[in-house]
Amino acid sequence: MTGDGPAPNRATLHARVLVDELAKAGVSSVCVAPGSRSTPLTVAFDAHEGVTTFSHLDERSAAFFALGRAKRLGDPVALVCTSGTAAANFHPAVIEAAQSRVPLVALTADRPPELRDSGANQTIDQEKLYGDAVRYYADLPEPAVEARKLRSVRVTADRAVAAATGTHPGPVHLNVPFAKPLEPTEAPAPPESPHGVPETWEREHPLAARGRDGPFVATAQGRLTPDEATVADLAAAITRAERALVVAGPTDRDYADELVGFAEAAGAPILADPLSGLRYGPHVDAVPVYGGYDGYLHPEVTASWPDPDVVLRVGASPTSKPLRTYLARVDARQVVVDPAGEWREATFTATDLVVADPGVLADALAARVETGGADWPELAEAERVHAEEVAATDDAFEGGIARRVVADAPDPATLFVSNSMPVRDVDRYGAPRTGDLTVLGNRGASGIDGVTSSALGAGSAADDPLVLLTGDLAYYHDSNGLLALERCGVDATVVLVNNDGGGIFHMLPIEAFDPPFEGQFKTPHGLDFAPTADLYGFDFVRVDGLGDFAAAYAASVESDGTQVIEVSSDAEASHRTREAIAERVRERLT
Amino acid sequence: MTGDGPAPNRATLHARVLVDELAKAGVSSVCVAPGSRSTPLTVAFDAHEGVTTFSHLDERSAAFFALGRAKRLGDPVALVCTSGTAAANFHPAVIEAAQSRVPLVALTADRPPELRDSGANQTIDQEKLYGDAVRYYADLPEPAVEARKLRSVRVTADRAVAAATGTHPGPVHLNVPFAKPLEPTEAPAPPESPHGVPETWEREHPLAARGRDGPFVATAQGRLTPDEATVADLAAAITRAERALVVAGPTDRDYADELVGFAEAAGAPILADPLSGLRYGPHVDAVPVYGGYDGYLHPEVTASWPDPDVVLRVGASPTSKPLRTYLARVDARQVVVDPAGEWREATFTATDLVVADPGVLADALAARVETGGADWPELAEAERVHAEEVAATDDAFEGGIARRVVADAPDPATLFVSNSMPVRDVDRYGAPRTGDLTVLGNRGASGIDGVTSSALGAGSAADDPLVLLTGDLAYYHDSNGLLALERCGVDATVVLVNNDGGGIFHMLPIEAFDPPFEGQFKTPHGLDFAPTADLYGFDFVRVDGLGDFAAAYAASVESDGTQVIEVSSDAEASHRTREAIAERVRERLT
Repeated sequence: MTGDGPAPNRATLHARVLVDELAKAGVSSVCVAPGSRSTPLTVAFDAHEGVTTFSHLDERSAAFFALGRAKRLGDPVALVCTSGTAAANFHPAVIEAAQSRVPLVALTADRPPELRDSGANQTIDQEKLYGDAVRYYADLPEPAVEARKLRSVRVTADRAVAAATGTHPGPVHLNVPFAKPLEPTEAPAPPESPHGVPETWEREHPLAARGRDGPFVATAQGRLTPDEATVADLAAAITRAERALVVAGPTDRDYADELVGFAEAAGAPILADPLSGLRYGPHVDAVPVYGGYDGYLHPEVTASWPDPDVVLRVGASPTSKPLRTYLARVDARQVVVDPAGEWREATFTATDLVVADPGVLADALAARVETGGADWPELAEAERVHAEEVAATDDAFEGGIARRVVADAPDPATLFVSNSMPVRDVDRYGAPRTGDLTVLGNRGASGIDGVTSSALGAGSAADDPLVLLTGDLAYYHDSNGLLALERCGVDATVVLVNNDGGGIFHMLPIEAFDPPFEGQFKTPHGLDFAPTADLYGFDFVRVDGLGDFAAAYAASVESDGTQVIEVSSDAEASHRTREAIAERVRERLT
Repeated sequence: MTGDGPAPNRATLHARVLVDELAKAGVSSVCVAPGSRSTPLTVAFDAHEGVTTFSHLDERSAAFFALGRAKRLGDPVALVCTSGTAAANFHPAVIEAAQSRVPLVALTADRPPELRDSGANQTIDQEKLYGDAVRYYADLPEPAVEARKLRSVRVTADRAVAAATGTHPGPVHLNVPFAKPLEPTEAPAPPESPHGVPETWEREHPLAARGRDGPFVATAQGRLTPDEATVADLAAAITRAERALVVAGPTDRDYADELVGFAEAAGAPILADPLSGLRYGPHVDAVPVYGGYDGYLHPEVTASWPDPDVVLRVGASPTSKPLRTYLARVDARQVVVDPAGEWREATFTATDLVVADPGVLADALAARVETGGADWPELAEAERVHAEEVAATDDAFEGGIARRVVADAPDPATLFVSNSMPVRDVDRYGAPRTGDLTVLGNRGASGIDGVTSSALGAGSAADDPLVLLTGDLAYYHDSNGLLALERCGVDATVVLVNNDGGGIFHMLPIEAFDPPFEGQFKTPHGLDFAPTADLYGFDFVRVDGLGDFAAAYAASVESDGTQVIEVSSDAEASHRTREAIAERVRERLT
């Protein structure tokens, strides 16, 4: 229980019970943005020794920090904000959490019901504010000194955490009304004041006030286990297959051991997205893990390849568009495995949807398949040629920087990659390594918002060095997130590839139309980011050549404190280099 | 119509029609954040000569900029973003627009329906993303070369603008799906390609393709006119009244002329919120307009006052809590006038709700009331004593700075005030003036988010000097908004009262509880904001004393370019000064 002694008033009691139960249910950290209406929650979290509290000033950054932390921890992280638009600032991260299945518990303080839609200050309609983006929503009862209500709060807290961490993990939303007094001010007990708590009440109602040892409701989460017929059928198909393939997309949970076991048993190579948890790690020596496919799965290259017979697809749709279109044109049995039963490939060519836990399915199949392992010489050859051509290219382009960021990352390390070009470059050039790299990104909704905060949140959750690979638009967009470096005690190496605007648009046909290309798409901002270092207190290193970058990067990952290493880049030239490498790979493979 | 010649493909045609019609319906400006899926809209807006395009990089700031601009213009402003979390970043400003009744037209690009909930990249559930916060929502049909569909797009655009500017103005949301090609790339006409537009089609369907001269649907918005019996009854009550009072809260529309006319006819003083449009202007010489009430409407002061007989309340609930609680304790007929029929006073003591246009009602009553004008000596005396005590106080506290900001603002000027303390200080210390001051703030949801962007948006809409009075948390929260200074060509004088954290919490009981006061409420950030000037390109002036402030302020409002004038403040000392002045006022008045 948080706080010492009996609760001085009903709001404090209510918040203590809620926070106590969330902690017992597995919430070990919270991101709080200051506010008045949320005072009881903030006070209760701050007083709870079992919960680490991070204080943020921008709710948008707070929510992304919580997202990154929850992603890296694998545990739910709570969020607290006051009433009003503060709560709407959580929305982008709540959506990203929904799409990338990250457990967040958003607690939004609210006015009591009678003050809603009444003209009261800082009062908006917070009911179901995040729509269908949350797995669970509850509008909590108003604080009252009633045992049943408080038991219901405990049950709700446990249900919320269970929903956030269940078969379809994601954000949940508890809207929590409070009337004044919001502070832990002593209020006379009823009937003198409706706000007080009778002195003996907590002793008389220990179940409501103190809960149980451990969660009030012990929640057991089953794993979705495929039925025998499905396993037998798939195992037979894989045993028959000349070529089986595992496609591992971005994932919210670690199925590496099970999938590697399956791949070994089935003789299936793994096409591993950088966000799949499978591209990096010791298993890379044990089974064929490929990471260069984004650079060579071109129709001209694969035209002469035999199609795979069976493809096992786990995780979200892969980052690589060449991989997605390859899978759309092959004649294969494609099995999408998803515990949440979502459809996760937008070409609509997969043949099977198995609603089951990928780890359980992979284990069951590994025990069943009988195959000597198929030979995939074309894939192995293509991966080799791609790697050679990349290695033969001067790394002084955006893809080369991404390559070095991955190749030279310490072991272990957490690497967070921004959307837009960084994740695409890591996908294509960040070759598989045996090192223990945890590569994360916000690939649920693929926004460039909240990237810095997400990275720092991830960094707060682990002891290994944190590296963030980002671009100038993402860096600008979440510059507020840099406050967490000092405020939340996170050190990072930030590699900032600055191409002064929307470099990705050089890859799109709009480039040929100017105007509006320059003014509305490329939108150069001309920002000199060095002052962000003075604002938020870190080292800003601007490097000129690749040699400088490599040295600065090596120095940063080995040192304390935060360094932002800015690499100026010509987006168009980088794009031409990407094309040239791909062209050479194509030529050699066709 | 935007663009030259026939549309090269159906997405371009669709976007051109939509933008053309929005412009004809009255949208003269748009805030665009770059993105790929929104390409057709961006291209069409950029090409439209009748629409001014502002380019932003952070959708949250873009939306607040649009809000401020629409607030100052009185016309709807459009917003464009790409699909995904970008759209969720609009949410805070959409809510503020809903609550403060500002017309915004949010256009969110989306994937075509088959790609929703399919695992497609950057695809989220955007349907009704803003819930009940919008006045109108439509999921537009996919682009198609069909005359009826395109006529429906024109009707939808007109309806959306009509809803945004109607009796209950506010934001509207059009979700606009596009399939590739998104760029104005020439596509072969059907049947060769479904994306093309037959060469003769636009000529054959001029109504769909070109619309009409002026809006496709001429929209006539009536004004809600009170019935005869209501007017007669109120006029009689006011005629009988010894003391009538006008309470003008924050408003989205200008009813100054009508309300002043009514006040003159009824002999009713006006308690004018700084955001009411009534505290500043030439009429201040013609009728008693009071602005110091937040400093003297204490129960001890008003205990000996006769109650008003009739109170006419227009606009939103006033910023001043002393005023709101005064109105809750007097025995008066209190008439809330609201064209949207909302309940706008959270003490629940008003006696009448008149759902009518305040201007129409005020005119009708002015023509009808017969009264020599009541004498309100207590109010006049209290206002005078308050002004004297304020004048007798050294202005070197937060309230004094706010006083000087108002008193020394050029005539005319636009003054934007942040929430939290600035608006409260302007409320209490920003005395009525005959100068043409347009004072604006985000008082709908009273967030501290988006303040800078809202101010700069307002500044973009008028030629008079722009002054922003803000605090350090709001300045930090929307520091991204400063990019608009150069990018959108706005000059401003920013008065930044820096008390290093949540100064407002010193006014709340939580101050007595430390921990968690310092760590979770006051939350000092220690930020040195000078580098923001290097980042965004303006002058940063840190002033020491009040004399320095006055000089810097005078110099800034008369010069071009942007100056941020930072005044360091001790929040606690400022609060003590506020209390001391109020105490002296109370003593003299009781």
